[in-house]
Amino acid sequence: MSYVRCLRGIASGVEYPAGIPMNLDPVDGRPVEMVLDLERLRRAWPDASWYRPGRNDLWRFGALLALDAEDPGDARFVVSLGEGATPLLELSGEPAVRGTGLRLLLKDDSRNPSGSFKDRGMAMVASQARRLGLRRLAVPTQGNAGDSLVRYALAGDLDVVVAMPPDTPAPIREAVASAARLHPGRVHLELAGPTIREAGARLKERWLPQGWFSVATFQEPGWRIEGKKTLGLELAEPSPGETRWHVPDAVIYPTGGGTGVLGMWKAWNELQALGLLDARRPRLYCVQSQATRPLVDAFERGATDTTPVVAGATVAVGLNVPGGVGHARVLEIIRASGGAAVAVAEADIEAQLTRARAAHALDIGTEGAACFAALPQLLEQGWLRRGERVVIVNTGSLAKYRPVAA
Amino acid sequence: MSYVRCLRGIASGVEYPAGIPMNLDPVDGRPVEMVLDLERLRRAWPDASWYRPGRNDLWRFGALLALDAEDPGDARFVVSLGEGATPLLELSGEPAVRGTGLRLLLKDDSRNPSGSFKDRGMAMVASQARRLGLRRLAVPTQGNAGDSLVRYALAGDLDVVVAMPPDTPAPIREAVASAARLHPGRVHLELAGPTIREAGARLKERWLPQGWFSVATFQEPGWRIEGKKTLGLELAEPSPGETRWHVPDAVIYPTGGGTGVLGMWKAWNELQALGLLDARRPRLYCVQSQATRPLVDAFERGATDTTPVVAGATVAVGLNVPGGVGHARVLEIIRASGGAAVAVAEADIEAQLTRARAAHALDIGTEGAACFAALPQLLEQGWLRRGERVVIVNTGSLAKYRPVAA
Repeated sequence: MSYVRCLRGIASGVEYPAGIPMNLDPVDGRPVEMVLDLERLRRAWPDASWYRPGRNDLWRFGALLALDAEDPGDARFVVSLGEGATPLLELSGEPAVRGTGLRLLLKDDSRNPSGSFKDRGMAMVASQARRLGLRRLAVPTQGNAGDSLVRYALAGDLDVVVAMPPDTPAPIREAVASAARLHPGRVHLELAGPTIREAGARLKERWLPQGWFSVATFQEPGWRIEGKKTLGLELAEPSPGETRWHVPDAVIYPTGGGTGVLGMWKAWNELQALGLLDARRPRLYCVQSQATRPLVDAFERGATDTTPVVAGATVAVGLNVPGGVGHARVLEIIRASGGAAVAVAEADIEAQLTRARAAHALDIGTEGAACFAALPQLLEQGWLRRGERVVIVNTGSLAKYRPVAA
Repeated sequence: MSYVRCLRGIASGVEYPAGIPMNLDPVDGRPVEMVLDLERLRRAWPDASWYRPGRNDLWRFGALLALDAEDPGDARFVVSLGEGATPLLELSGEPAVRGTGLRLLLKDDSRNPSGSFKDRGMAMVASQARRLGLRRLAVPTQGNAGDSLVRYALAGDLDVVVAMPPDTPAPIREAVASAARLHPGRVHLELAGPTIREAGARLKERWLPQGWFSVATFQEPGWRIEGKKTLGLELAEPSPGETRWHVPDAVIYPTGGGTGVLGMWKAWNELQALGLLDARRPRLYCVQSQATRPLVDAFERGATDTTPVVAGATVAVGLNVPGGVGHARVLEIIRASGGAAVAVAEADIEAQLTRARAAHALDIGTEGAACFAALPQLLEQGWLRRGERVVIVNTGSLAKYRPVAA
């Protein structure tokens, strides 16, 4: 029993029928998202009984997701490897916030099945593809999205082609190559570069015309947003012993394409529509590398969209997104939240990678390290205030990029 | 508020005061365990209200643990990196059980913070050490236990020395070495071999006389058993939407020293004493490698204890335990459960490592692969029966042993 009422262009507002395998909004080439009938959901599940906190994965948000893993009609489509429900950890010893009165927490999404937050989106992608009867999926990737999709495709009995630049981090390239060797005809690897753009072009040229369905960022009809929505839901759900939903004061989020920003925002808006949150939102601080900072430039300029830049070189591979069809919406959300987009130096990311990993004994990846690198400027500029509860999102494990102990 | 009534020798039955930093039972050199006052617990927490299913780590078992992370008096001692609450995943596509009517599940403990089930024990070790004011811990290891303890020691502001054979898997050796470089004077690495026995001897000779406290398997007073107990609790806790606690029909468990076996059994006994389980227990199938099979030999001989063997060479490093002070109790538990100890060939472990990882798109380690390798003989010999719910425990991530993608 799905409560998806329709698909809707996030910029055009034009509505399309739910359940059609569309890509970008034909009106303006912007993303579409899934619109839920929250009134009907509310009537069907009084007292937010769609929420099943005892369940230890992202499917505990039940009917508030586009597929309900515990609905008999939906369950057969759902592909799960135990994604989501990642820990929210206190970083009480963090020296950067000592004496500031801040309460700093880490949402550790490196603890997902494939080691990154991409699993939230790809679990939903594989499940939705199965529901629509799509058997062949194509994705261009800088790394984590490709590895993740391969796992969910295999688990969901789907075929997949992954296109990536040849300089994709070796552990991920090897994981996909090894899956392709083990599952000939089911998993395909295309190396095309130098950037994800050329990888995408290769898919468009060779694979999409053969009927493979693109699940590149925002190319699928809101599925990855719907999966990333669970990050926002998890940041808002009642703590143990509480009954009240509530959000942190600020979220520091490493931002590439921005699916997670759209997803979190959608989560909080839906919770408000359901009467579970008020109008307050966390201030979103989107962190980019100085090497590739389209969002930061646009934010500082006061622009409503990014101007595509030439991608630089950053160890935070997932942030190396020179432009994107979702960036206008990301900027709108940052501003609506009262937050900011900030850039950090590569040297600071590397320094935090060593320091923060050692200080907290956690598997903080390069994108997570970029958020730690942003703390000093956020504090100096007065963005973070005494007594606030601030969450850093660690989007992935370092082991995906470099050979390190898990 | 702790419900630990005393420590007790698991073989001698002799009781010792709770909260003393003892090692093995002085009466017989066997392990001691923590004994809880379950009657008092039951009265204090009616309707099993110590259980907090909304909490996403092993501390959700509250007062049923030796420390309650939500008790104000205990909380300051608790060291947590978000351990436990690992997923229990359906392996519906497993060809080995096709047509058998079995429901096969994987308890994926590779999803712990350091990538292995050792985190359950070491979270408890670090927390108990802090409670008793012990600041310097020593552990000999074949790998995962050492890496795990280093992380919890750092997080809990304790000092640690880890002794390991020089041929410990490189990712783990490197992780500990790198922590030692980053935290000089706080983390120490001793290379001593060729086996864990010589590593232990080195600690005894150089470190324990200086006041370092040994937390080698069973050397601490039941702490690691208490941590591993949470594995048994998680296997028995109500599924989402249920209220009833219940156990699987069988658990296939890769067994080295056997702390996990003692821990799970203790969990189920305590749940029965609390009126939450009946007398039924899962049949325990302890899996070892043909290379080092003391439990299997003793089980087949009908012996009440293992005869220490010479350690062989196995890729399932965690199973390479030639003998142990807890083995007599492991044999007793296997028999009481109606289960068995079985050995698998090295070639079969390697074959399953490739096949099972690819088939299920999960990070199955060598010890988990050994359990898959045991399935054919368990089925052929009639140990597993139609309609049963059978759990394989995947104790760790392959990335801890070999450079693979996460």
